[in-house]
Order: sequence, then C-alpha cells, then structure tokens
Amino acid sequence: MASLSPLAPKTQVVLAPLDGVRLASHACGLRYQGRTDLMIAELAAGTTVAGVFTKSLTASAPVLWCREALKGGGARLVVVNSGNANAFTGQAGVASVRRTVEVAAKQCGCKPEEVFIASTGTIGVPLDDSKITEAFGAAFGGLAVDKWSDAAKAILTTDTYPKTATRTARIGGVDVRINGFCKGAGMIAPDMATMLAFVFTDATLPAAVLQELLAKGTVKSFNSITVDSDTSTSDTLLAFATGKVSHAKVSGPKDPALRDFRKKFEDLLLDLALQVVRDGEGASKFVKITVTGAASARAAKTIGMAIANSPLVKTAVAGEDANWGRIVMAVGKSGEKADRDRLSIRIGGVEVAHNGQVVAGYDEAPVTAHMKGTDIVFEVDIGVGRGKATVWTCDLTHDYIDINGSYRT
Amino acid sequence: MASLSPLAPKTQVVLAPLDGVRLASHACGLRYQGRTDLMIAELAAGTTVAGVFTKSLTASAPVLWCREALKGGGARLVVVNSGNANAFTGQAGVASVRRTVEVAAKQCGCKPEEVFIASTGTIGVPLDDSKITEAFGAAFGGLAVDKWSDAAKAILTTDTYPKTATRTARIGGVDVRINGFCKGAGMIAPDMATMLAFVFTDATLPAAVLQELLAKGTVKSFNSITVDSDTSTSDTLLAFATGKVSHAKVSGPKDPALRDFRKKFEDLLLDLALQVVRDGEGASKFVKITVTGAASARAAKTIGMAIANSPLVKTAVAGEDANWGRIVMAVGKSGEKADRDRLSIRIGGVEVAHNGQVVAGYDEAPVTAHMKGTDIVFEVDIGVGRGKATVWTCDLTHDYIDINGSYRT
Repeated sequence: MASLSPLAPKTQVVLAPLDGVRLASHACGLRYQGRTDLMIAELAAGTTVAGVFTKSLTASAPVLWCREALKGGGARLVVVNSGNANAFTGQAGVASVRRTVEVAAKQCGCKPEEVFIASTGTIGVPLDDSKITEAFGAAFGGLAVDKWSDAAKAILTTDTYPKTATRTARIGGVDVRINGFCKGAGMIAPDMATMLAFVFTDATLPAAVLQELLAKGTVKSFNSITVDSDTSTSDTLLAFATGKVSHAKVSGPKDPALRDFRKKFEDLLLDLALQVVRDGEGASKFVKITVTGAASARAAKTIGMAIANSPLVKTAVAGEDANWGRIVMAVGKSGEKADRDRLSIRIGGVEVAHNGQVVAGYDEAPVTAHMKGTDIVFEVDIGVGRGKATVWTCDLTHDYIDINGSYRT
Repeated sequence: MASLSPLAPKTQVVLAPLDGVRLASHACGLRYQGRTDLMIAELAAGTTVAGVFTKSLTASAPVLWCREALKGGGARLVVVNSGNANAFTGQAGVASVRRTVEVAAKQCGCKPEEVFIASTGTIGVPLDDSKITEAFGAAFGGLAVDKWSDAAKAILTTDTYPKTATRTARIGGVDVRINGFCKGAGMIAPDMATMLAFVFTDATLPAAVLQELLAKGTVKSFNSITVDSDTSTSDTLLAFATGKVSHAKVSGPKDPALRDFRKKFEDLLLDLALQVVRDGEGASKFVKITVTGAASARAAKTIGMAIANSPLVKTAVAGEDANWGRIVMAVGKSGEKADRDRLSIRIGGVEVAHNGQVVAGYDEAPVTAHMKGTDIVFEVDIGVGRGKATVWTCDLTHDYIDINGSYRT
C-alpha cells in the first residue's frame, strides 16, 4: 500500500458485528504478495439485495452476473477479489464467474443466483479463478462476525486506507444498524464512481424498497464524485438487508416510517463516497464544488462535473492557485446555459468574481490561505435559474501520474 | 519560452510573402517581458473572410466581436495580442474590444467591422487596451510583406515553437498560395481546439465559399485534436482570401475547380492542428488514434475522443505502458454502441486484443519498443458497424502539471 493519503480521515471507523453477516478474508496470491485479496460475506437466509452498477458498455463479467442475479431479490453470499478485474476477458471471463459462483454456492448451500461477485484490479488479464475456489475451504472456515476490518482491507487496490462507515437508524421505534465499506482510488467518475461498495443493514426491507433507497441515495453520493473522469468497467454498489431486526412492516419506499432510515442510509453512502475522493490517486486536496443558479438541478450537476473534471482546474488546485478564470472556462465548456456576465464565484467563502468580472480589490490573503489548505471550497453561481448541485473531487498531482504511469509494471 | 517540445517538427517552415498581406509585431508589455505580444495583419481591399469559433457559452469579448463582424464578409485588419485573453472581463472587456477596433480602423482607414481581433493569455484580468492602441503607431509603421515569422511568434503563450504551414494549389490552371500560422499549447479540446489560427490565401473566393471550405476543413483537423479536454473561451480560426490572384470565377463551394484547393487547404489545416498537438503542454508522446467499425462516423469520433481524453490512457502512454485495458475502459465510457466481445485493438500495428480478449502469446517486444518511441499509434476496431474516425492527442505528463500548476505565478 502506498503511503497514507494526506486527506485520510483522522480516525478509522471500526465496524461492530451486524446480525446476519459473517465475513472472511484470504490471501490467494492473484496479483499482490503478502496481503489478502479475497473477501467473503455470508448472509443470513432471507437477506434481500439491491444493486447499482457501472453504465459502461464494456462492463465486466462479474457486473453482468450481478445484474442478472439481482432479479431474484435474495442474497446469501458476496465474493470479492482484488488484483484482477476479470474485465475484457471475453467468454473466458464469463466462464470464470460461472465456475466461481457454482463452487461458492455449493460451499454455502445456496443457489448460484444468491451469490454476488465483484472483481477489481488489472483489466484484460484472464483471471485464474482456481486460486479463488481452491481457497474457499480455508476462507469459509474463517467466517466470523468480527472480521469487518479484514474484509474492508481485502478489497483494496491502490487505495491507501480502508473505507468504512456505520450508522444507527430507527424504523417504527426500533433501532436498526447499517455498516458499509468500499474501495475507490482511480477510474472514479460519474455514473457509479465507487468501483466497489458494500452496505449491510439488519433492517427488514423488501428488495424493491432497498433498491429504490439505493438508487436514490446514489445520485447525491457516489454519482456526485469524480477523481479523474474515467469510468470503471466494474463499478458495483450492493446493499443487503438481513431482516434480523423485527420492526413494523415497511409498506413501500415512501413509507414515512423509513424517514430516519433513509436519512442515515444516504448519509452513510455520502460518507463512503467522500472517503473515496479523499483517497483519490495522488490527491493532495479535497475539493467541494457547489453550483447554484443553474437552469436546473441536472444542469447544475453537469456544470459541477465539468469544473471537477477539468485538468486545468485540478492542476491549479494542486498548484494552490486561486485561478477562477479556469472555473469560468469549465462552466463554458459544460454546454449548459450560462451567461458570462451573471456568473459569480466564491473561493473559500470570498467572492472573487461577480457579474462576470473580477471583484475589484477583493482581499487575496484569505483566498491564498484557503488554497494552501487541504479542503478547498468553490461556490459558483450561474445566475440564470434555481438549479443547484454539489459535487466533490480532488486535485491532479504528480503522484497521480506516477501511480498510473506504472500501474501494470 | 519553455524548452522546445521533444515532438517539435525537425524544421521550421518559412512562409514566403503572399500578395495582399502585410504583417507586423510589437512588444506592448501586456504580461510578458522581453518578447512581442502584438500581431497585426493588414489585408488588401476586397479581402474576404471566414471564421470558426469556440462553442463555449462563456466566449470572450473578442470572439463575440468577430462573430458579428463576420457577417460583413470583408476584412482589412487582424489585431491579435497574447498575454491577456480579455475573457470573463464583463462589459469592460466588450468596451476594450470596441476601443481597440475603432482606433485600429482609423489607423487603417477602414470600417470597424473590417477589423478582426483575438486575444490569448490569462482569463479574468481586465485588459489594458491603451497599451495596444498606443503601440499602433509604431506597429503599423512596421508593416511589411516578409514578417510572417515575427507574426507567428507574437501570438504564442506557453507554446514552445511557432506553428507555420504553407501550400500551393491550382484553381482553373492558375497557382494560388495558402499561408497559415497558429498557436495552441493548453486548453485544447474538441469543437475548436486551436485557440488561435490564421490562414491567408491570395485566391479569389467569395466569403460564403471560404466559410464553407473552412467549416468543413475544421471537422477533421482542429476539431479532431485534443490535449487536455478543456475548451478555451477564445478559440478562433480565421481564413482570409485577398483575391490578388486572378483565376476563373468560382461558382460555389462545390465547384470542381476548387478540388485541388480544397485538398491543399484541408491538408494545411491538419498540418497546423497536428503541430498544436505536438506542442501540447508537457507532451512527450504524439498519439494517433484510429477508430473503425463504429456504428457511425460520429460515434467513431466520440469513442476516439473518449480514448484521447482519458487521463488513465494518457498517463499509461507517458509511462510507456501498452495498457490496452484502459482503452477498453474508455470505449465503454464513451456511451457509444460497443460490444465487449467484438472489440479489437492494435498498438503500433500489433494486434494485442481480438474479439474481446487478449491475443494469447502476442509478441510483446515490438509493442514495448513502439511505446518507447515518440509517435504512438492505437487502432481500435469496435466491430459493430462501418463508422471510422481519426483523432490525435498527446500524453499527460509531470510537465503538464508543472506548467498548469503555476501558470499565473
């Protein structure tokens, strides 16, 4: 693992056991030496599942499998390996998934379509799944309720720290819990930015309700972050509800009883998503971009992402340069409605541009100080409507180039 | 000027005088010290003009002026400054353009709408146009037919070499000539990639014909290159026909007599555009990406640009890594029709992936050697149709970050 990101959270959240989930990790030697690369989560009978996946048209074999398996609505196992993405491996990749799922289902005593699978790592190299299936005996033997930390570590690739989050929510007066962990690092972009994320709750939720909560919760979390605009072929976000806590039956996704749960669930998704940004490859600055006054919320998000993905904006942030002119450029290239002479920009709370012009004599000292910090805030008002959105990204640094110029070697 | 790009052409093309054009350059001290930053081209009475501009919705004041002036169809002067883009300068920027154009028109004895203006450099800083207009006396006094090289240098910003090209074409048995120069470097992306380019011919062409030739010629040249996906607010490509050579009257843009001229004109545009890529900020590799078998030509270009703009592809090229998996990723994120299992990829002429899988045992030695060179060729066959396109880009290097992390300081 590379040296810890300077933006890493000060403390690592430790996940407590969650009823209905047992975890294990193992070192299969798929690519990495001296570390685990296989994670298994075993789920109680009756667990429901929801998923959101990459929109890539060259999606990996594991993603195609999960999309199909999701139709059953139930899950008993999650099998995840790091080191090899099993993506662009043709029919061999499809066969590899099939073999892995079948051996896992037999080991667990469940149906193949109750097994969810995800792979992350190098693209285009056939996955030697025998290394995984041969490790199942030992791995399943190690399943335990307190292995959350080990599980969160086993799925990492170029991440510099494990990403975990937990929340407690109330449904109909009863406490339920939510645990989640994920991995990110590079190839992080809109439309499933996360690469891999797994969220578990002991609440009792029909699969359709969980799916609705997950799809909505993704919009303002994982789909509002970007590291480098590149979209992985393997992005997978799965949520599981073990149903181990009994509470009043939930009638549907809009049931008022879900209000607190939805809030905590979305909060946890955002927490995980922002941890991904804070561990963006080579990141030295965390950047929050708020766009207001756009023609619509969708337009605001498009503009925010155009700013967040601009190499010129990102290198200016890395250089601690309050170069708001490049923000204007990015607004212009977004293709969304804008008026040069109504645009206003704040950096670190200080208005630097107003109605399309530099604010004469604005105080540069606090802006300069803000740019030297690690948490950068850009507020852009387009001045043409009421649409707003917030997106998050990191800067583009020499380390990003070092990490990605030598990934395979 | 930074040290010369390693991809710079071996020799600099010297432009010979072209009937109807006189040029001058001057040092106004707008931003740079010890170099020229003002270029003036004086055009013979009767010169026609055509233009293509940035699609940015926050276009600069000079671009807005040129778009309007273009409606007149005639041109007598081109005034270009470097160091300050006069972009996002609000109504002050508009007034600055107006003052500059009026003083220039008076100096030349023409109408304001026959003056074309372009500015490149820092965004968002009010332009002190008095420095330009006060220099007009000296600058106009220096107009001469042999100042092409000086003119090409005066418009540069972070470019490491002037970009020039010349062609001779025949219209109805008569030789005509075309001279062009341009600047680029950063903020180079689809839909007017050039920043600034100026092309002059002594042919006799109605403005409407010249406009049609320019618009069509831009598609496969300046609009098929990208350095960093960022779109300037100032991109401007202007073409002028002085009408100093008499040849058979051209009836329209499809006149068969224009066949050779069109070919040479488009060839010159591509020549200039590729010089821009070869001088991309921090570029150490020139990358040609050919996409075939896409659903349409438009789809092929979208896919090509998704590959060309992918930070992960660009850093892999910088790292001399034949990482075709990232090419697959970029195809997938383009949003265009693709079939993972029909995709084939050649690097340096060697097929590394076929029908969605790595070509077992392909010879890595020539591929590795190719990646160590400076001119990289990717050929991607999508396998779903007959659409094709070629785009050009450069790699993403540490130097790009150095140049852009400290541009204003």
